[in-house]
Amino acid sequence: MSDTASLAQAQRSLADPDIRYPLWPPLIRGCPRTSSADMSYPVDVEYDYAQVPADFLTRAGSGLDRWSALLPPLLAPSLGEGGTPLVDLGEGVYLKDESRNPTWSHKDRLNRCTVSAALGAGAPGIVVASSGNHGASAAAYAARAGLRCVVLGSAGLPPAVASFLSAYGAVVLPVPAEERWPLTERIVEEFGYFPVSNLTPFHTGSSFGPEGYKTVAYEIVAELGVPGAVFVPTGYGELLFGIGKGFAELRELGLTDRVPRLYSCEPRTGGPLAAAVRQGVPATRVPVGATDAYGIDCPVNSYRGVLALERSGGDPLLVDDAQLKAAQSELAAQGLWCELSAAAGLAGLRAAAPEVEGPVVCVATSSGFKDVGVGGHGLAPVDPAWESVLGRLSAAGIRPA
Amino acid sequence: MSDTASLAQAQRSLADPDIRYPLWPPLIRGCPRTSSADMSYPVDVEYDYAQVPADFLTRAGSGLDRWSALLPPLLAPSLGEGGTPLVDLGEGVYLKDESRNPTWSHKDRLNRCTVSAALGAGAPGIVVASSGNHGASAAAYAARAGLRCVVLGSAGLPPAVASFLSAYGAVVLPVPAEERWPLTERIVEEFGYFPVSNLTPFHTGSSFGPEGYKTVAYEIVAELGVPGAVFVPTGYGELLFGIGKGFAELRELGLTDRVPRLYSCEPRTGGPLAAAVRQGVPATRVPVGATDAYGIDCPVNSYRGVLALERSGGDPLLVDDAQLKAAQSELAAQGLWCELSAAAGLAGLRAAAPEVEGPVVCVATSSGFKDVGVGGHGLAPVDPAWESVLGRLSAAGIRPA
Repeated sequence: MSDTASLAQAQRSLADPDIRYPLWPPLIRGCPRTSSADMSYPVDVEYDYAQVPADFLTRAGSGLDRWSALLPPLLAPSLGEGGTPLVDLGEGVYLKDESRNPTWSHKDRLNRCTVSAALGAGAPGIVVASSGNHGASAAAYAARAGLRCVVLGSAGLPPAVASFLSAYGAVVLPVPAEERWPLTERIVEEFGYFPVSNLTPFHTGSSFGPEGYKTVAYEIVAELGVPGAVFVPTGYGELLFGIGKGFAELRELGLTDRVPRLYSCEPRTGGPLAAAVRQGVPATRVPVGATDAYGIDCPVNSYRGVLALERSGGDPLLVDDAQLKAAQSELAAQGLWCELSAAAGLAGLRAAAPEVEGPVVCVATSSGFKDVGVGGHGLAPVDPAWESVLGRLSAAGIRPA
Repeated sequence: MSDTASLAQAQRSLADPDIRYPLWPPLIRGCPRTSSADMSYPVDVEYDYAQVPADFLTRAGSGLDRWSALLPPLLAPSLGEGGTPLVDLGEGVYLKDESRNPTWSHKDRLNRCTVSAALGAGAPGIVVASSGNHGASAAAYAARAGLRCVVLGSAGLPPAVASFLSAYGAVVLPVPAEERWPLTERIVEEFGYFPVSNLTPFHTGSSFGPEGYKTVAYEIVAELGVPGAVFVPTGYGELLFGIGKGFAELRELGLTDRVPRLYSCEPRTGGPLAAAVRQGVPATRVPVGATDAYGIDCPVNSYRGVLALERSGGDPLLVDDAQLKAAQSELAAQGLWCELSAAAGLAGLRAAAPEVEGPVVCVATSSGFKDVGVGGHGLAPVDPAWESVLGRLSAAGIRPA
């Protein structure tokens, strides 16, 4: 399935990198030795870095398979994920357009890896608690791999997302949010299904999944070199962590000489990562207010996010819905229609406007088709008489030549 | 804007290749010398083929810019269109997934070229009659290029498509279908806007636009070699023509030694290209029945389609909605969610099942988000009690391990 054999050799605790576990089976509840009822620590994947080919950054290949040496074994078949374009927004700012993935979000990079974990674990199916991009992406990769998929979703989805979530043949069960966790546990226990969403009080998620996001960093470096900063829409921080780990690996390997500063961009209505950093704790819980950025609207963070900011010398940013909408409009005016959550990277850049040496990359995670309100209504007809059309054009500032 | 200077040197009539016009301005009503009230003949673009670099197929580059030598001058800024993956469906069949473009359809390849034509013609804006992918894509490229855009749409759009069409700041005017043509003419005349949709009784469309589709052929050859056959969802036949021209150019240049057989795949409820081929005429008009494949539901064809089939030794195919839905489901079961119209390529392959030597490529033009019915309704909640969930799972054939 992949161009090069995976060099993955173990799982290791993010709380204490001396604590290692075998690569198989992929851990589904974080690091058991360091986690407690009060704190959940994730694990990540360790590689045999000495064996990484010297031409790692320049060798031919496409999508995730191009980077398979530094990914978990890609047992799940590809849908052609990754290889997304960097769109030049001017003034040294680039948009990494993740809406160009197989299910039109960054989650495809993660789910090629989570479904590979499920296949390697010998599970007959996967179960995922998600109401959006993650659930649909997991369903797509499960379908592609011939695994069944159960999605514990929500009845309150934007209507176009409801169609999306149901498109890939998964069993979609909309249940109240508080029922998702116990139902996931029970489906794991009684059906032997592999969970590809979180099962711990603070987020630990999948051990394999965030590895897929490292490829965002690899692609940026291969195309642009090391940027000065990267602004990342941040929910549970898996994307942030993966991108940071990718840049760090390249520096450790001597393929680059520095890493970019990472900025996490969370909705101001919540912002557990910003709160954890402020409090100096690995993870925390915050009350969550109303925001249309439902894709990154999280009550808890993961220790992954804290690590990613620390290791890159970066900062947590908070953006409100007005800033998100302004960034979304700025992108639409450049011909790029993204989900409100996906505009958080650019919103963070515009809000913080830090001094950055070198190019800046904002990650846009997903397509505008997934937004709240999309598909809720059609278009009202207009009177086709020329005077009426002229009036419409004039109101929009369009006048005869 | 582009990697290599364009070798475009003239426009030429498709009715008589000895009839040439200067490259600028791009003709907007087909070939004036051969067209009449009874027949409309398109023009295409001719290049200085002697100057094409020998490494044309293998040189580095991304998206459309990689192929800029054999495209019209790419004056419009890129959104990172093209470079879409070929997804392996097994048994020698590949899907060219055009939903991976900037506005999630093949139309982006065309509209980088149509908006380049508008810029080169010095127009202050563009006008487009379209209710779907073409209109939204044109709006995106116009926005990116700093041109205004008027979309003459329809009030009967799928609701998610209504949001899509409105996303890029265009003035969207939903009017009855029969009003679109006279309004386009008047906006062209009185506002100096450049039309990027058709203005002739039979379809001629843009002279520059279909050139963008040649890149589908170039990418297929660069990745896979020359396939045995290509199955193309067909409306007015611009995509079919562009793909055919791309393969033919590579053979003329001696970079390949053959061309694939092309199959046009139209909805059985209309099928003007199939009718024109049957009647032995360059173009015809057919009554159009009900189909959900609204993206390729056309009452007239273009001479382009007839030429593309003739030159490749291909055949016109007709598919009904049941065959389209079966192909759409087959793709969803592989993790690929496409619009019903976009499934026409695979539907044509499954229906015709011709003997083909070598790999087969089916083009899927667009994302499932654009389909009729998407976004029309949310998900009904289910009872989260375990017995109820068990019942749901059991009904879907999922049983405890």
